[in-house]
Amino acid sequence: MHVLQSAFLFDLDGTLIDSVYEHVLAWHEALLEERIELSVWRIHRKIGMSGGLFANMLLRETGMNIEPDRIERLQRRHAEAYKARIGQVRPLPGAHDLLMFLTDARIPWAIATSGRIETAGPAMETLGVDLSRVPIITRDKVKHAKPDPDLFLAAAESLKIDISHCFVVGDSVWDMLAAQRARALGVGVLSGGYGLEELERAGAYRVFEDPAQLLKHIDELGARR
Amino acid sequence: MHVLQSAFLFDLDGTLIDSVYEHVLAWHEALLEERIELSVWRIHRKIGMSGGLFANMLLRETGMNIEPDRIERLQRRHAEAYKARIGQVRPLPGAHDLLMFLTDARIPWAIATSGRIETAGPAMETLGVDLSRVPIITRDKVKHAKPDPDLFLAAAESLKIDISHCFVVGDSVWDMLAAQRARALGVGVLSGGYGLEELERAGAYRVFEDPAQLLKHIDELGARR
Repeated sequence: MHVLQSAFLFDLDGTLIDSVYEHVLAWHEALLEERIELSVWRIHRKIGMSGGLFANMLLRETGMNIEPDRIERLQRRHAEAYKARIGQVRPLPGAHDLLMFLTDARIPWAIATSGRIETAGPAMETLGVDLSRVPIITRDKVKHAKPDPDLFLAAAESLKIDISHCFVVGDSVWDMLAAQRARALGVGVLSGGYGLEELERAGAYRVFEDPAQLLKHIDELGARR
Repeated sequence: MHVLQSAFLFDLDGTLIDSVYEHVLAWHEALLEERIELSVWRIHRKIGMSGGLFANMLLRETGMNIEPDRIERLQRRHAEAYKARIGQVRPLPGAHDLLMFLTDARIPWAIATSGRIETAGPAMETLGVDLSRVPIITRDKVKHAKPDPDLFLAAAESLKIDISHCFVVGDSVWDMLAAQRARALGVGVLSGGYGLEELERAGAYRVFEDPAQLLKHIDELGARR
């Protein structure tokens, strides 16, 4: 009998930890310090891309000059503003249980995030799972971040699982688009604050409210309880 | 010749000023202080209701006890946490120009907000328009706030315009539902961070990105430039 080995590749912010709104307001603060006024909802809609791509696009959309200095300064200020807010960041409901379930069921999983390790690290620790044996692909490890597929491709490779057997779980349109480009199936969660239809239109195979609801429906994603 | 006098009734937070994400995280902070852990996106989806209804619903959904003391404490803590964030709150693009256009064109307009005057006041001042001659209906002035229609009905009455000739401009599902109940036409804006389809499904007649885009299309809403 032939059984397909499937795997789960998780985005981090908004998918496993409840940090999207803090990231959004941290970007807003960083932009205001550079005297760039951009509506908060527009920042929210760009979150989940690589920080560099994100800063590039913001500067382009606002018609500002794209000097490398300025992008670096924005990224540093965002990281500082986010760290100041991290005390209120919690794991999302069900995140711990979902990861424990997959681990116990010997279903491979990995984390692939557009964030850098210095911002992603402290948040991941709140998940309460042993991350030493889990591949964690951060922005630092690939050339192009989401919506390019590199992060998810690298995560699947670390697990030695064909990407076409993987579910990519994410909260943003960029995760769903990157999943399509990687030929994985995208599973959306609403916990990043995007609308259901936005994720569906970006190609989500299924959409759940948060990791807790995903875990309740895990049988529908090929995992037997 | 018979010309219908139409009017515009505006929600405040997320519609004229860019304050939704600060309100969301201020509620999150207030809830954490009460040891209530609720995902941030769920708070975002409830914002725009009356604070009391909102606190009631949160406590009910989290299965916590609804003691009047606790609701009052939550509301006070939210107001304090919001005030601490108000330095970063800006008017939304086009808000000032839109209100000036309506004023110059002698098209009546009013503001109807679920917020209370002490939190709404400082934010309104950033709009840079003379508010002394504009009806401002806050939570304090009606028995039931959104999604009940009372705020918008009171605003239309202050303008002495039939509510069925009014456009209700708002960023949240609650504004669009209240508009329907009041028999006004709801005009959605995306600047509160909700998805386009969420607003359409709640009955929005039109949806624009923000006040700037609405102003560009003002002819479509019966106002002649």
